[in-house]
Amino acid sequence: MALKFELIKVLGKARRGRIYLPHGIVETPTFMPVGTNANVKLMTPKELEEVGAQIILGNAFHLYLKPGMEVLKFHGGINNFIGWHKPVLTDSGGFQVFSLREGRKVTDEGVLIKSPLDGSKHMITPELSMEIQNAINSDIVMAFDYCAEPGIEYDKAVRALELTTKWAERSLKRIRELSDQAIFGIVQGAFFHDLRERSAREITSMEFDGFAIGGLSVGEEYDITLKMTEFTVPFLPENKPRYFMGAGSPKLIVDLVYNGVDIFDSVLPTRVARHGQALTWIGKLNIRAAKFKFDKSPIEETCTCYTCKNFSRSYIRHLFDRREVLGQILLTIHNLHFMMDLSKKIRDSIEEGTFEKLRGEVLKHYD
Amino acid sequence: MALKFELIKVLGKARRGRIYLPHGIVETPTFMPVGTNANVKLMTPKELEEVGAQIILGNAFHLYLKPGMEVLKFHGGINNFIGWHKPVLTDSGGFQVFSLREGRKVTDEGVLIKSPLDGSKHMITPELSMEIQNAINSDIVMAFDYCAEPGIEYDKAVRALELTTKWAERSLKRIRELSDQAIFGIVQGAFFHDLRERSAREITSMEFDGFAIGGLSVGEEYDITLKMTEFTVPFLPENKPRYFMGAGSPKLIVDLVYNGVDIFDSVLPTRVARHGQALTWIGKLNIRAAKFKFDKSPIEETCTCYTCKNFSRSYIRHLFDRREVLGQILLTIHNLHFMMDLSKKIRDSIEEGTFEKLRGEVLKHYD
Ligand SMILES: [Zn+2]
Ligand SMILES: [Zn+2]
Repeated sequence: MALKFELIKVLGKARRGRIYLPHGIVETPTFMPVGTNANVKLMTPKELEEVGAQIILGNAFHLYLKPGMEVLKFHGGINNFIGWHKPVLTDSGGFQVFSLREGRKVTDEGVLIKSPLDGSKHMITPELSMEIQNAINSDIVMAFDYCAEPGIEYDKAVRALELTTKWAERSLKRIRELSDQAIFGIVQGAFFHDLRERSAREITSMEFDGFAIGGLSVGEEYDITLKMTEFTVPFLPENKPRYFMGAGSPKLIVDLVYNGVDIFDSVLPTRVARHGQALTWIGKLNIRAAKFKFDKSPIEETCTCYTCKNFSRSYIRHLFDRREVLGQILLTIHNLHFMMDLSKKIRDSIEEGTFEKLRGEVLKHYD
Repeated sequence: MALKFELIKVLGKARRGRIYLPHGIVETPTFMPVGTNANVKLMTPKELEEVGAQIILGNAFHLYLKPGMEVLKFHGGINNFIGWHKPVLTDSGGFQVFSLREGRKVTDEGVLIKSPLDGSKHMITPELSMEIQNAINSDIVMAFDYCAEPGIEYDKAVRALELTTKWAERSLKRIRELSDQAIFGIVQGAFFHDLRERSAREITSMEFDGFAIGGLSVGEEYDITLKMTEFTVPFLPENKPRYFMGAGSPKLIVDLVYNGVDIFDSVLPTRVARHGQALTWIGKLNIRAAKFKFDKSPIEETCTCYTCKNFSRSYIRHLFDRREVLGQILLTIHNLHFMMDLSKKIRDSIEEGTFEKLRGEVLKHYD
């Protein structure tokens, strides 16, 4: 298997780890920037490296639609294609199945889905998802899962769980035929404790290289997200990485780390940047505010990112005022740098035994 | 005066020069990227430096509207504001007077103009233009001129010329009261030889640090642009830099250099980049073309820009296909690098006596 996980330190439930992958080493806990269409929006790979990104996330379903598997294979995988030579994790398309509900049809075989690009129909099966992720040649492949809607009834949640387990088996079988890429299984079970437990037991009984908690952070209340995570994590093996799919708020991240999660991803830091919102150590900051017109200070005095070392709030506010995309670029750099800095400070604090203090500081400024 | 011009070599009419300015040295001939709203669209200052930009152009009128003179003064000028610490030339607003014809009213005093941002009215006088450019603290200030429409009748062209001369006097007087910033006068005279000569004689009789040829490249036929330039240049002094306002096509640039022009600017290289057009040594290339889907080669094999060193045509085509702004960013880097490379090759070829050969190559691929 093309993944090795090292547990460097455990502090309470929080873990400081290291994942060895074909394209490099990932220090955990860490945040993964999201690169849906074969790029992290507005970022060159050089800028991604400069903010400290260790691994980025790609979307199998989107990459399947464009540029398509032929192009990906032609380039020998996504790394050469996009000029990013560090690790990539790909989601399986399961989340798109969840979010593109219109015209969707779920069967035992897979999911018939309508392309958001041209309305064409595509039957996505666990096997096809593996073939796509193999063409992408990602360092970490995700099993094809069925992510249930929040608030789903019990019997529908059972069906989603059972499909997820069957599809996990088929995913594992197919990827092993194709390559030795590392693959993570995904635990579903909606918001039902018994189903979460059952899903976790079924998924972890298979030979996956890591495990993801899926079906959370999909619109439910914060307490539910956290309690379901707290409940699920103990069913996951200690010696494999744990990935919470779709966590980008600093508050959620420290709470997840507290509960023993190692990896996170979200479009949030990059998306809010494009809308003028900066993440800082003392909370969010809306750079469009009039009060910044004459503010020479950087977004954050202590930040060492390119944006904060070179530009004032006054300037970035002006760029947003004139709808100049450079403003969005500069805030994206800052926000990703903040997320990577948050990840690093979390790692350091676990090693130093001060994570609880750091978590308290984050929770003070983010709610 | 805050400008020193050195003529290093003259080859026929073509000149290899060097301009010493408060924020640095500019080797000529050179192309200036345009930064209308206090930024060159999609480019960080770091990227601008990496493509080899020596001096960028700002627009006094746009900067007057946003962020406004107070903000510019607050930052001590545009360099600190935008994080670009090399030279800046500002146009005077004369061209905006020309292009924003709706609701405009020209009097001896100045021009009443309607803001394209909010419809508010502004009386732009030569004095105000100087005050704005002083607040910007540009290395080179442009006199406030009246740029006539292409095809204007003779008596209207006379009026525009006479206003331009009067405004040049007032510009010079006001800027000298304010600072020792270098200032260029602008020659007008529409497409009439006698008026071009008269304007050149009047403008060059004043103590300007350099001279611009204005009122060309505004929609007229290529032959007219070139012939009017050829006619006008001999009236300009040898020992001062010559600037052709609004030249961005490689063909026009080599033809202007051939005629003794030193500096150029245009939004063209950055604008066409945003529409998928790359400038190369063998002509234009439309990166959206289907044939590039499986093309692993860079935009241009011999190009040393960040884009060409790291990305394939196939990838950039994909980014345009998915309307990802990163595609526009990567092409902007390439096109600006091309313009700066063209400038450098022009300079080298003048020094080496091979400019005619270089010009022939460019004209072979651009018409
Ligand atoms: Zn920053
Ligand atoms: Zn290039």
